[in-house]
Amino acid sequence: MSFSTNMRFKFPILAIVLQIVIIILFGVFVKYDTHDHSGPHNSTHEDNTFLNLYPLFQDVHVMIFVGFGFLMTFLKRYGFSSVGINLLIAAFGLQWGILMQGLWHLHGGKIEIGILKMINADFSTATVLISFGAVLGKTSPVQMLLMAIIEITIFACNEHLAGYLGASDTGASMTIHAFGAYFGLAAAAVLYRPGLKNGHENEGSVYHSDLFAMIGTLFLWMFWPSFNSAIADPGLNQEMAIVNTYFSLAACVLTAFAISSLVEHKGKLDMMFSNYARCCSGCNTGDLCCWRSSHRFISKVTNLGTTT
Amino acid sequence: MSFSTNMRFKFPILAIVLQIVIIILFGVFVKYDTHDHSGPHNSTHEDNTFLNLYPLFQDVHVMIFVGFGFLMTFLKRYGFSSVGINLLIAAFGLQWGILMQGLWHLHGGKIEIGILKMINADFSTATVLISFGAVLGKTSPVQMLLMAIIEITIFACNEHLAGYLGASDTGASMTIHAFGAYFGLAAAAVLYRPGLKNGHENEGSVYHSDLFAMIGTLFLWMFWPSFNSAIADPGLNQEMAIVNTYFSLAACVLTAFAISSLVEHKGKLDMMFSNYARCCSGCNTGDLCCWRSSHRFISKVTNLGTTT
Amino acid sequence: MSFSTNMRFKFPILAIVLQIVIIILFGVFVKYDTHDHSGPHNSTHEDNTFLNLYPLFQDVHVMIFVGFGFLMTFLKRYGFSSVGINLLIAAFGLQWGILMQGLWHLHGGKIEIGILKMINADFSTATVLISFGAVLGKTSPVQMLLMAIIEITIFACNEHLAGYLGASDTGASMTIHAFGAYFGLAAAAVLYRPGLKNGHENEGSVYHSDLFAMIGTLFLWMFWPSFNSAIADPGLNQEMAIVNTYFSLAACVLTAFAISSLVEHKGKLDMMFSNYARCCSGCNTGDLCCWRSSHRFISKVTNLGTTT
Repeated sequence: MSFSTNMRFKFPILAIVLQIVIIILFGVFVKYDTHDHSGPHNSTHEDNTFLNLYPLFQDVHVMIFVGFGFLMTFLKRYGFSSVGINLLIAAFGLQWGILMQGLWHLHGGKIEIGILKMINADFSTATVLISFGAVLGKTSPVQMLLMAIIEITIFACNEHLAGYLGASDTGASMTIHAFGAYFGLAAAAVLYRPGLKNGHENEGSVYHSDLFAMIGTLFLWMFWPSFNSAIADPGLNQEMAIVNTYFSLAACVLTAFAISSLVEHKGKLDMMFSNYARCCSGCNTGDLCCWRSSHRFISKVTNLGTTT
Repeated sequence: MSFSTNMRFKFPILAIVLQIVIIILFGVFVKYDTHDHSGPHNSTHEDNTFLNLYPLFQDVHVMIFVGFGFLMTFLKRYGFSSVGINLLIAAFGLQWGILMQGLWHLHGGKIEIGILKMINADFSTATVLISFGAVLGKTSPVQMLLMAIIEITIFACNEHLAGYLGASDTGASMTIHAFGAYFGLAAAAVLYRPGLKNGHENEGSVYHSDLFAMIGTLFLWMFWPSFNSAIADPGLNQEMAIVNTYFSLAACVLTAFAISSLVEHKGKLDMMFSNYARCCSGCNTGDLCCWRSSHRFISKVTNLGTTT
Repeated sequence: MSFSTNMRFKFPILAIVLQIVIIILFGVFVKYDTHDHSGPHNSTHEDNTFLNLYPLFQDVHVMIFVGFGFLMTFLKRYGFSSVGINLLIAAFGLQWGILMQGLWHLHGGKIEIGILKMINADFSTATVLISFGAVLGKTSPVQMLLMAIIEITIFACNEHLAGYLGASDTGASMTIHAFGAYFGLAAAAVLYRPGLKNGHENEGSVYHSDLFAMIGTLFLWMFWPSFNSAIADPGLNQEMAIVNTYFSLAACVLTAFAISSLVEHKGKLDMMFSNYARCCSGCNTGDLCCWRSSHRFISKVTNLGTTT
């Protein structure tokens, strides 16, 4: 078996083995969360919990697959792989996330799947997708799958540890955003080769690619209130999270365009900064605003230096 | 009147006549479904039925108009007509579907329109849009309208017959997917001309077109849980349909990318296979998985052979 | 300070000053609408009001930012600025709209923010975005911000006046659509220069731009039922608004394609007319159908004459 043949079979074998392992683990550990429906009298209320949160789940789902997927399409050579590999990682990550997060919260030895578990599964993929931004174009699908396994496992432990310590981490600023950013930068540092320093010719952007990237940016920006509120306590807390995120997103757009116009050559507006607007709006809870947006700027400087 | 003038007026006259016929039939047969609101006491619960299902309806709506619309845009010459004619067929089809499906379920000689009827109307257009994939570039708007009339009429009869026979067809695998696929193949066979055999120069794909097609694929993939659950029985059945579809979609992505990597030249990932991932995920109900996805592969081989 | 330096700093300073003014006014006048949650017994019902309307709000949100954003991308030079400046104006406009609309409905000297206020804030930006279509490519970001301030202030007064006079304006046909169209035409007339008469070379359209514009058109078309029903009275009225808009949208597509085919050179279908389909479907309330769609046709003739 030659080396290239070996390479060719590595990815499909890894993907299929992982999927078989996940199916077995699901068979052993996973069951439906049916106890919402045990009482005959409160069926209306409890049914509403699932269907009331389902639109917020779908907003998060769109952010993960369309938002993150199209965010990186402005790189002219990686547009298609950005969307495709994003789909691959997220589809694997949400299954792995269910298992890793669920193992910390077993009920009678089982992981009970409901709408909140599905939202959390989508959240756990966000960590890997943030890191993906720092290593795009430097990694193979095999490496991305391995990175997803490691990163989501550590993320689930971090999240459990934060809950154990009683740390306040609303919106998962630390466990998802800061962790994803630094994990990605660390991975990029390990994969760094001196020959890549002066920028890769594949990293330029083209006009239409920017419009595709705007699709990703806009869906991330619009549905951010759903992301911040989906797993909040029901009632007033959830509504306040939605209202706060809505207005801070709007305020950050004006600030971001102003700074973009000051910093950029000839006062042009740069699309990257509208993404900054989304990130910065995370600071409605007062914690870690700078950390949260920093991963975009850092990845812009380190990875995307040739596109401005 | 010359032949070309004749051709020019054929489509607008057919479209306007069809619309007038539909408006008359709506005037005679259709009324609002108001009996949810007859009781003064249960208004809260019943209001929720409409608004609780409305987000699922909008997900299906996005699948029909954005999902199917952009699915075919990878053909470089048919991108725009794919989206435009998809809009035309679906807008006609949902009105025709209301009438054809409603005639089998009259209440006092009237079709009562509520959220479930609107979801079913969107469903009935899916049949035609699946067939559309097999005849894209071979048909005129006039032919497509005629095909929609015939196909939706037969679909409504099939669906009623399946209900009459007590056939289990969860997710409408037979009545929508298999029927749409084979109807489309039959239509393509009738329209087949030997000169087209070696592939049409209009059928190549270009880079940006693929990204547009990913928009369609992703919206179909993401909202598939809504499609499978929208008309399920409320409560646990609906939730199980959502959960099952969510995980089988994710599992199928890994499998599809693995097979794509094995089959394709140089192990590249092919976008078509991510669409296969969506189709195959329909098999969570255990029935007709292969039939359901086969229409994509068959149409790939017969229609899109030059794009790979 | 040279002229060009002056120009460069004008926009960022205006944007930041406006944002600071808004933050101060929010601090003085705005508070959460918490009285839904004052009663301990009806919490389930009242929570549902926010979450039941939240999906409709997100549909409107997508219309404002993706729908209007991508509507104008068919102009080959303005695609990116269309999406970007649309984001800027809407993000400013929704904050300004909260203040201008809220000042007419103070509760104890405060503006109480809930889901209906957020939907109305998105609505008030629609006025400016409709006018935006008439002046695209003729204005700077500074001029657009000033236009947004003036137009939203007048819009809020008009809306209050219409309510005071008891005028029926369902779907806001007059206060949003007709007002936005004529304000934009007036602004375009003021900015008119004879040298621009024969069409601007930047105004041509290209193939891929049209597909981006279809994204905007489709999202506006699909979510129009949410736009028309979001602030309607709960229950049957809201459901009738959804059902009516759904079917009139579908009917208008057939009519629009028929007219497009008659009018256009060689019977080709023109994308602009599918947008007309959306506008005309607003006439389900019987009032001002022509006014409502006229702004598209007028702007087509005056501004976009070179694209057909």
